[in-house]
Order: sequence, then structure tokens, then C-alpha cells
Amino acid sequence: MPGENTEGLRRLGTKSFGNVILEKERIGEWASMETTESGMPVKKQKLKRSIIDTDIHGSAPREELLKYMPRIYREQVATFGWRLPTQGGMFLNGGTNGSMQDIKLPRNDTHEDNYLNYVREHHLEKYNIEYGIMTGGGYEVHAATDTDFAAAVCSAHNDYYIERYLSRENRLKGSILIPKQDPVLSVKEIDRVGHHPGMVQVVVSNGAQKPYGQRFYHPIYEACVRHDLPFTIHVSMEGIGINNPPTGAGHVTSYIEYRSARAQIMMAHLASFIFEGVFDKYPTLKLVMMEAGMLWIAPLLWRLDEDWKALRHQTPWVKEPPSEYYRKHVYVTSQPLELPPKAELIKPMFEAIHAETNLMFASDFPHWDFDSPLHAFPKLDEETWDSIFYRNAARLYRLPQRKGAEEATA
Amino acid sequence: MPGENTEGLRRLGTKSFGNVILEKERIGEWASMETTESGMPVKKQKLKRSIIDTDIHGSAPREELLKYMPRIYREQVATFGWRLPTQGGMFLNGGTNGSMQDIKLPRNDTHEDNYLNYVREHHLEKYNIEYGIMTGGGYEVHAATDTDFAAAVCSAHNDYYIERYLSRENRLKGSILIPKQDPVLSVKEIDRVGHHPGMVQVVVSNGAQKPYGQRFYHPIYEACVRHDLPFTIHVSMEGIGINNPPTGAGHVTSYIEYRSARAQIMMAHLASFIFEGVFDKYPTLKLVMMEAGMLWIAPLLWRLDEDWKALRHQTPWVKEPPSEYYRKHVYVTSQPLELPPKAELIKPMFEAIHAETNLMFASDFPHWDFDSPLHAFPKLDEETWDSIFYRNAARLYRLPQRKGAEEATA
Repeated sequence: MPGENTEGLRRLGTKSFGNVILEKERIGEWASMETTESGMPVKKQKLKRSIIDTDIHGSAPREELLKYMPRIYREQVATFGWRLPTQGGMFLNGGTNGSMQDIKLPRNDTHEDNYLNYVREHHLEKYNIEYGIMTGGGYEVHAATDTDFAAAVCSAHNDYYIERYLSRENRLKGSILIPKQDPVLSVKEIDRVGHHPGMVQVVVSNGAQKPYGQRFYHPIYEACVRHDLPFTIHVSMEGIGINNPPTGAGHVTSYIEYRSARAQIMMAHLASFIFEGVFDKYPTLKLVMMEAGMLWIAPLLWRLDEDWKALRHQTPWVKEPPSEYYRKHVYVTSQPLELPPKAELIKPMFEAIHAETNLMFASDFPHWDFDSPLHAFPKLDEETWDSIFYRNAARLYRLPQRKGAEEATA
Repeated sequence: MPGENTEGLRRLGTKSFGNVILEKERIGEWASMETTESGMPVKKQKLKRSIIDTDIHGSAPREELLKYMPRIYREQVATFGWRLPTQGGMFLNGGTNGSMQDIKLPRNDTHEDNYLNYVREHHLEKYNIEYGIMTGGGYEVHAATDTDFAAAVCSAHNDYYIERYLSRENRLKGSILIPKQDPVLSVKEIDRVGHHPGMVQVVVSNGAQKPYGQRFYHPIYEACVRHDLPFTIHVSMEGIGINNPPTGAGHVTSYIEYRSARAQIMMAHLASFIFEGVFDKYPTLKLVMMEAGMLWIAPLLWRLDEDWKALRHQTPWVKEPPSEYYRKHVYVTSQPLELPPKAELIKPMFEAIHAETNLMFASDFPHWDFDSPLHAFPKLDEETWDSIFYRNAARLYRLPQRKGAEEATA
């Protein structure tokens, strides 16, 4: 059959080929397949049920950001350039500048029009995404020595996102970028834009000078709680600029080591949140760990629970086992999804990290290691799939239940 | 029955009380129970089969070390004190100075006699230990700024252990302490004492200035291979002195965070060994990861294997999946044993870290978080138990098969 994508079918594990996919158990299934004009097969696929994607990246071109910045910084940038260390200055990445190689943004309109047109067609529509959380861009501010400059860039960034993306596409929600190396300025920024209905969380990158549970940062959490916004740590900027080297053993050589170092730093932040008593001090605070993997959470919690039994007299404010703080306060996003090679481990490991209540699907669109909502996950029962692909994120970000949920389940 | 230790019996999960333990499946079982003169119950317990304990700590009093050091350093120490930053200067620990609270070394003889008498009675005899690997002590040298001084302390340390412990108790084997911040001096020390039959490995602590796979350290691995000695990383000195902060997010506040940070640094070292191509360059080299936990190895390998598929063009010398390098080259010790709370996960997680071939029992005697060979482990089949408690260590350290193995299995 022309255009039949048998490779795709094999990946889906179906037992029959043709336009009709016979595997009914799989919820994320292809609606149809088409060919391009040249006859090349094209995967035109769509989920029957809509989903929430918790990690979509946009970008704000620096020349556009300048328009939102005070004159002093416009002049400084013109004179000295942008004083922002970047990850690309240290490490290779996959793909092209970190993005999928086959992504070609149109170049006809403004950057935001080009982006919005592309993301609508190739992502929101394609995968039936009801809401997408935009997580930045702009993390270089967290590597900057000059915190006033970092704060100005954050404000410009947030204003750009509100004006150019959130106000024009209701499916996209935003993240408040803060100059986290300066909690006073961070609070100011949260108070400035935290009321905007399109802003659904506060975001910082993972690289740090101090673990995020420490008291230095507590004013930020107070502001998050005041505005009812989750605090989200997204991987980036580890070992860059003012931040500590990306591992406790120092700087690493290769990007693949760097990727696993990111999970290690996230472990340190999670332990810090728990043992500094942040969740005891701010009982309604929610923490989101983004793009640092997830299965490592299980052995980390086993270790912390064991150690807490023996050592809790040293941190008496930590009143419950660490795993309980995780279960009640912490959300984790799925991409880049790591799975045990033995299928028998998937279910118990998902249970160990409380996937059914604490895991949220993320694609990381348009980055090179994008996880497709159709292909990335193993088979899940309907209830679990629905929690991970919609309900957990809807609950966390206070987004409405999916439109037409009745028809979809009928 | 006088002296019957029903609490112990409950922990062993036996179904009947009395002098005869009815549970036959458990290999590590009590031989007899006695009472003290005052009538207090005493656990007199012994394993039917002898074991190898891969992590036993001794100590070398500093005033004794001085006798093995050149006059210049004896004079410096007399004038300025010991220039060695310590972990105790930064963090609390469990127990008393890190040791079990009920340990009281006799004080009648020399330090080494007091120690040897104690370790023989309360550890080697008590638990039927055929060989015990002494792992130090002395790691403060790895935090020192003055590498010549560090090297002199290492030599004194090694000479003290050879003369005072290894030459007097054949069951105890030693680890060559090296000034690892200076590979040239490290190689010199390995060449100086690497021929001693009681020295079975080269040991460094976990805290580091650079991840251990980096080329800076390769002369050390060349020397290890030349002397057919494993290279062992034992937790300690993370974030102390010249070393990097213990996490990629910086210094941590509490000891319980510090303990989980140790595993993170070990992850960085393991990834560094693999992706710097150390095992490709030195195919006979064995790496031992000591006291940093073990179950985290599984999700780390899943992550590295996945990433290697996508990114191996960036490190083309890494020819096999990372998990294969682990399986072929890396040993891990068990203490402090972390176990999943759900028993169904134990077997598949043990399989995922190749426990049957790569895991070795360690007690960490006499430290406060000592794992008893009788109580620490879950039930294992006989084959697996034997590999973890004897055969893997015997193979790695080239120690003989256990004496009287025939009777024991009969």
C-alpha cells in the first residue's frame, strides 16, 4: 500500500498492517497515514484523547528581548555584548543547536508568528495537545554574575512570552523566569507577573551555587505559595558561569556524562528541599523536577528513608519519611524517559516513584531528544495513562478537565 | 529458657523458638546462644560458612605514623600540627566518632594489639570471616594541599599497616593508600609496596578535584594493571579541603544529605571511567565502588545505555553499552545496604546490578552503620549468597577458596 509506514507499525507492536491499526489496547494510536506529494510516507498521527505536554520550549530572540529592557542595558549590550555564559560554550549537544534536525521554522513572519504557526501544526494539532507548558529558554541568566542584569533579562523574557505567545495562544501556558541567584529580585519578579493567568509556575534551571532547599531561597517559596504557583527546576546551566561544577567530582568531559550529572544535581536539590524542612515550612508548596529522568528517584528515596530512620535526630523538623514528602509535594516530568530493559520492572518502578499521581508527560519539543506522546511510553493501563498524560498536570497547574472528555471515553 | 534471644529470633523470621533454629533455608544462622555472667542475653552467633568481608576499618594513630615519616615532617608536625582537613571538621556522623557506640577497644597493649585482639574476637571469629579487607583510614591525605606531605603520610600509613596488621594477622588484607591528587607520586607508592602479598588493592577516597576517568589519573591505572591490583574508590572526603563541593549544587547542610551526595559523586566517577575510555585503554583493570550504596547503579546504567545509543558518535572509543563495561570491570560493595521496601523488587534489582557476579558483602566494621552478615541481607538463594559473601571477592582479590568448603556444603 502506498505510504504504508511499516516501520512505524513495527514500533507500535501491532500484529496487522494496513490503514486500520488493530491494536485496541493502545490508547495513543494513529488516526491515519498519508503520503507526501513525492510519495514519501508521512506519519500523520493523532491521539484519540487530548493531552497536556508539560515541557515545550519556545525562544525569545535576543534582539527582541532588548526592546523590553531598560536603556542602560540596551546600551551595555550594544557596547559589550550579552554577558551571559551559555551551555553551548561548554558542551556539545545532540541535534542541531539542541533541536531536532528536521525542524525548519518558517522564516516569513515575525519570530513569534513563525514559532506559533509551526508549534500549532507540528505539535499541538499533531499530538492533540490541549495544553502545553512553555518552560523557556533564557536560563543563561542563572549563570550571570550581574544579578541586576539577570533580573532585567528575566523581566524582558517574561514580558515577551506573555505578549507574544501566551496572549495569542490559549493552549500555551508560561513559566516565570526569575533571577534565582538573588531571592529579593526574584520575589519582585514573581510579584510583578505572578497574577497573570497564563503564568502557571516559577521556573529556575538546575545548575546552582547552593542546593535549593537552603534558607537563602526561602523568600522565593514564600512568593510561590502567595501566588499559588509551583516551583519548577528544569535542567540547564549545570557547571556554567557562577554555578558549581556539574558533579561533586568536578567538571566532566563529555555531554553524555553531563546529562547524567544533571540527575545527580536534581537528587541534591530534592534531598535539600526535604532535609532543610522547606515542605514543613511551606506545606502547600509543590516542587516540579523537570527533564532529569525519573527512575533514580526510587533508589534515592529508599536510601533517604533508611538513613532518616537512623539519623532523624539530626534533622528533627523532618517528621515523616522522605518518601512521604516526595509523594505529597513533588511532581516529575517524563522526558527523557528512561526505562528498564526488563519489562517486568516497569510497573513496580513506576509504582516506586508514584507515577500514577506524581509523573507528568513531557515531550521537550522541539529538542533533539523529544519524546513522542505516541512512542515514548510503554503500554499503560488506561487509568495510569490518563493520569500521566493529563490529570496530574491539570491538578498541579489548575487547568480544566479536557474538553469533550465524555465523547473521548465513550 | 535462660538467655533465649527471642528478639533475634523474630528478626530471623523463624517459626519456632529454642536452641535449635528450625529455619533451614537461611544460611547465616546462629550456632548457639549464651548469657553473660550477669544473666543478660548475649548473641553468640556464627555463620556456618566462612565469608569475606570487603570493608573493615582499622586505624593508625598519628603519633605512630610519625615514626614512619621523614624528620622534616616530624618537625613540621611538631611545629604546625597536622595539615590535614577532616570530614569531622564539616559534618556530624552517626555513632561515636563514626563508630558503633558499644565498641570499647581494650587499652592494655599497643594500639595494634588492642585492635587486633578486638577485631579477632568481635568480628573475625564472631562472624566466621575467612578474609577481611582493611580499607583504611587515612583518607584525609586526599584533602591536603601539600602533595609531598600527603605522599609521606600515605607511605607511613602503608608501612604501618603492613608491619602492625598484615604481617601479624593473615586473615586481614590491606589497601595501598596513594596521594591521588599527584599521579606521579601515586605511581611511586604503588611501585614501592604493590608487590607485598598482603596488599590487595589501591584505594582512594571519593571526594575529588576531577572525575577519576580523566587522563590526569591514567598513570595510576597503568600501575594498577602492572601490579594486578584493583582500583578502589571508598567514600570519604567529599567536599573537604581541596576537593569539589560534595554535590553539583554545592555544599550541603546535613550529614544525611552528605550521605546521599556520596552516591552522586560515585555516579560521576563511574560515568567518567566509562566515557573517558579507561576500560578500553586498560582492559584488565577492575574498579571497586565502596560504601556508596548500590541500587542507584540500575537506573544510572539504564540512562547511560539509552543516551549512549543516541550520542555514541561523540565518544566513539566507547564500543559497548555502558552496562557492559560495568558488568565486566566494576565491583560494588554492599554496605550500607539499601533495599526496596517492596520485596518483589529485590530480585530484579539485584539482577539489574548483576549482584550475583559484581556485588561483594561488606560490613564496614567498626563504623556505626555496620551491616551484620547475619541480618543485613534479605533471603537469597544459596548460589547468590555464596557469590556475594565469598566467591566474588575471592575472584577479584585472588584469595583462595574457603577452607573446609566441602564440610560446610555437606
